[in-house]
Amino acid sequence: MSEAAVTMHTAPSPRPATRRSPPAALLAALHELLGQRLTQSAAECLQHGSDESHFAPQPPDAVAYAESTEEVARIVGLCHAHATPVIAFGVGSSVEGHILAVQGGICLDLSRMSAVLAIEPDNLTATAQAGVTRLALNAALAGTGLFFSVDPGADASLGGMVATAASGTNTVRYGTMRENTVSLTVVTAEGKVIRTASHARKSSAGYNLTQLFAGSEGTLGIVTEVTVRLHPQPECVAAAVVNFPDLHAAVRSVIQAIQMGVPLARAELLDALSIRAINAHSKTCHKEAPTVFFEFCGGRSQVDEQAATVAEIAGEYGGGGFAWSTLPEERSRLWQPRHHAYFAALQLKPGCRSSTTDACVPLARLGDCMAETLDDIATLGLPVPVLGHVGDGNFHCLVLMDPGRPEEVAQAEAFSARMAARAIRFGGTCTGEHGVGLHKKAYLLQEHGEDAVELMARIKRALDPRDILNPGKVVPVPRGAERVV
Amino acid sequence: MSEAAVTMHTAPSPRPATRRSPPAALLAALHELLGQRLTQSAAECLQHGSDESHFAPQPPDAVAYAESTEEVARIVGLCHAHATPVIAFGVGSSVEGHILAVQGGICLDLSRMSAVLAIEPDNLTATAQAGVTRLALNAALAGTGLFFSVDPGADASLGGMVATAASGTNTVRYGTMRENTVSLTVVTAEGKVIRTASHARKSSAGYNLTQLFAGSEGTLGIVTEVTVRLHPQPECVAAAVVNFPDLHAAVRSVIQAIQMGVPLARAELLDALSIRAINAHSKTCHKEAPTVFFEFCGGRSQVDEQAATVAEIAGEYGGGGFAWSTLPEERSRLWQPRHHAYFAALQLKPGCRSSTTDACVPLARLGDCMAETLDDIATLGLPVPVLGHVGDGNFHCLVLMDPGRPEEVAQAEAFSARMAARAIRFGGTCTGEHGVGLHKKAYLLQEHGEDAVELMARIKRALDPRDILNPGKVVPVPRGAERVV
Repeated sequence: MSEAAVTMHTAPSPRPATRRSPPAALLAALHELLGQRLTQSAAECLQHGSDESHFAPQPPDAVAYAESTEEVARIVGLCHAHATPVIAFGVGSSVEGHILAVQGGICLDLSRMSAVLAIEPDNLTATAQAGVTRLALNAALAGTGLFFSVDPGADASLGGMVATAASGTNTVRYGTMRENTVSLTVVTAEGKVIRTASHARKSSAGYNLTQLFAGSEGTLGIVTEVTVRLHPQPECVAAAVVNFPDLHAAVRSVIQAIQMGVPLARAELLDALSIRAINAHSKTCHKEAPTVFFEFCGGRSQVDEQAATVAEIAGEYGGGGFAWSTLPEERSRLWQPRHHAYFAALQLKPGCRSSTTDACVPLARLGDCMAETLDDIATLGLPVPVLGHVGDGNFHCLVLMDPGRPEEVAQAEAFSARMAARAIRFGGTCTGEHGVGLHKKAYLLQEHGEDAVELMARIKRALDPRDILNPGKVVPVPRGAERVV
Repeated sequence: MSEAAVTMHTAPSPRPATRRSPPAALLAALHELLGQRLTQSAAECLQHGSDESHFAPQPPDAVAYAESTEEVARIVGLCHAHATPVIAFGVGSSVEGHILAVQGGICLDLSRMSAVLAIEPDNLTATAQAGVTRLALNAALAGTGLFFSVDPGADASLGGMVATAASGTNTVRYGTMRENTVSLTVVTAEGKVIRTASHARKSSAGYNLTQLFAGSEGTLGIVTEVTVRLHPQPECVAAAVVNFPDLHAAVRSVIQAIQMGVPLARAELLDALSIRAINAHSKTCHKEAPTVFFEFCGGRSQVDEQAATVAEIAGEYGGGGFAWSTLPEERSRLWQPRHHAYFAALQLKPGCRSSTTDACVPLARLGDCMAETLDDIATLGLPVPVLGHVGDGNFHCLVLMDPGRPEEVAQAEAFSARMAARAIRFGGTCTGEHGVGLHKKAYLLQEHGEDAVELMARIKRALDPRDILNPGKVVPVPRGAERVV
């Protein structure tokens, strides 16, 4: 990503109250440790201060490329000694300003930690360094009959996926990154190396450090190795597509399938505008109606049974045009609109960026929450395609805005705030899978309340007393942190 | 349980360094709040200082029966003001000394908080007060087509099950209490009420307080309400039983079924001695060999397919006597030995108690770990039936010992220590589902190492600075705790 492209297409981001740049002694020590793998190149710093959010970049003072857990420990130990911020970086695909260096400091790039350390088919686990991406891990699993299930849109790193508790389209069947993380190797704020858990499938041995670090966005420790669960490749996979008269009908049919115990592998909803975008983008003529893309998997007879059950349910809710197949080519054709949805949506408004919301509500409230959201969108004056992981109650509004036009940025921001408040009012969360980062700190308070967020802040202060780990993210700035230099 | 029975059949438990009994002002304030629901009756205190462990009881100074979250908040707030221990109590079925009042204080009995607050079929969730037991919740779900899956041996309370991150026989299919807990209402050490999460299926909003409190055994906060996931009742259930020439073959066949994607509902292993105990107890003549009890569920065709696949796999590993059925009566008959295993085992040695280990290791190591364990047992001189939740890598050795004979107690304790060390050496955990309590604190350190346990202790100090919440359990006594009276 060039500097010009980054600065042109982003909105201003909150400026830090204080910048805590690394002192010369720290830079010298890091240079001694890493040689050329420590850089202060403006281009590299800029790239490492940019993510997929709508925020303008905030570059760190230097980028350190680590190659082992031991090196991460030494780097963090030095940053701790100098009370200098250190921000873990995977591939930079986060969307809420997670990796912006709002107080300066060192960006710790883990992309060179890209080794798959162990694949244990008998244990249905694999252990990899944090820089391994989900596609790289799946490539390494080829031939084992097993796969790693979590699939956010980007080819994110495992460390990043742990950090945001990522999920994706097949969460309804296989769970999020949380349920698929068995154990972590973590470097603490003081530069010590711990393992959060054994590789046993379950444990009641003490506080759940794995799940505490998962979703902590690099603010409590730096994940350097990840042991994940693997799943057997299903014998047979089927894709199905069906359109509905309205969103309620689409949502109800998915809920009913889940209640009846149909083990859906995927259930993705696109609204009519998304389908229109795809038709324009791909010169297709899909019916411009709310559409659910299903995937079923299992033995052949199970898959047939699931497809028949879902076709019957969809019919009860007025679903039409039910098409399905188990043949790979035909499956790809059926799912093609879903695969192209994001880029097709961006082309609805040339030059735009998407400010993407991430509401997740209880399934029973999803239809009402989406309906109210569509009413809100109707008055917005910006195009907003909607797509949802319906089986999880999670949906994204892609607010297409020109980051160079402050009024559009403000509209998008106001919509984002209304969407977060609405998700919370419907009994849900402001973020189902993207995380808090810089962007959702205020919503976190709305969602959890002061007393719960104060507990989170206490945990932050206890584990990172000098506030060096990705400071300014997730929880409010800790009170009473010792910022000893 | 009478006092005599308790004192006769238990081993000495560690005595506290310091007792922190409630001052008169606290007792007076609690009495004003609760009236007759505060008691210092010796019998009630004794009952509330006893669990299912082999430890002698350690009664609290008083028992407070709470009826609402608000009351719990006021009680804990008062205990906090007076720096007096407060120990949450459900049904007292924990097995590691969890609820023993080692420093005295107030036992907070939650059994009267027994209301099911909401059943939301469309959301596949239910919310209940912490004192509701698993069987009571399932009774309340009758007619909904849904059920609550987690099934430890006892009819435990939901609060207690959250506290120990309990699991049971169908974890292989439905997960432990962790995966089935959506959200908690928790009273903090200062007597504030928080909710750990929304009722959405997934969230990336801040630190995972739900999973931090789950498994914290009442040491970080007191769970007063629990929202759990529900599952659709399967259309068809089948039971199957098969015996194997040795433990390795039994374990390998279960692993292979899981790797092939057979969605086992249950896979329970009994060793030959357990079968012998059952034959003696029930006048049956099951083959005295390692035996796996399977359960399959799903649509009829799926269940047939699963049973056929498992029969074939079992045959490859020398499994014999494969019997299966979908008929309720026949299923009960097939599973009867498993249901009676615990009590049949106790009758191998009249008057004994079981000191029960709880190793959980990676599936790939389970066969070797069990084999080494059987060698250890062979030299022990005490009867030790073994049963396992094979699909989780979790197994229990029931060391049958006379608590009145110090040498047997010492033998059992030494075996327990070897078993914990062995589980850790095989890459697993000292406790898969029972928790740490008093008994496994030393093993926790072996398993996680000093640096990880120090992080746990920091969390304890941050969330409970006066060390009033179930003190002396799970983590080492906090350093730097303010014990202000």
